Amino acid sequence: MKLRNSSRVMLISSISSNPMKAFEWGTDVSIENMHQGFTHIFESTFESTEGVAEYISHPAHVDFGGLFLPALEKVVVFDYKPTVFRL
Amino acid sequence: MKLRNSSRVMLISSISSNPMKAFEWGTDVSIENMHQGFTHIFESTFESTEGVAEYISHPAHVDFGGLFLPALEKVVVFDYKPTVFRL
Repeated sequence: MKLRNSSRVMLISSISSNPMKAFEWGTDVSIENMHQGFTHIFESTFESTEGVAEYISHPAHVDFGGLFLPALEKVVVFDYKPTVFRL
Repeated sequence: MKLRNSSRVMLISSISSNPMKAFEWGTDVSIENMHQGFTHIFESTFESTEGVAEYISHPAHVDFGGLFLPALEKVVVFDYKPTVFRL
């Protein structure tokens, strides 16, 4: 895991004028046992759809994906425009 | 979808001294086609693990789960303590 996260940090750092505005990650601690075998989550925040597209197509991201994805047993990638409910 | 979200809003509103501090949701718009058939995401933020446990065990949440979960084709529930990477 340490290597994976370090790799992601290097990836983020290698993209100048980074369209990514926030990044956080964690491992599952749910007590509901509905993780379906998933162990890690990585959440990146962008200000625009164009920023996401720029990030995805960046050579550093493509290279990273080529190393990272084959090492995963399974993966879900989900992008969404958040609708915020005020509490 | 409207009904589902309304249900969640009612659920949130029905819990007094709500341990949930933020709630947002969205549908997948990713261009990477790795959504694995998942269509919606709901993200709730709590200040503590105890707050999550309080929410999960609340009768309103238990009742909601009994209605909501059987209506889903598949679901992943993932709780994590975010490690934030400063960009």
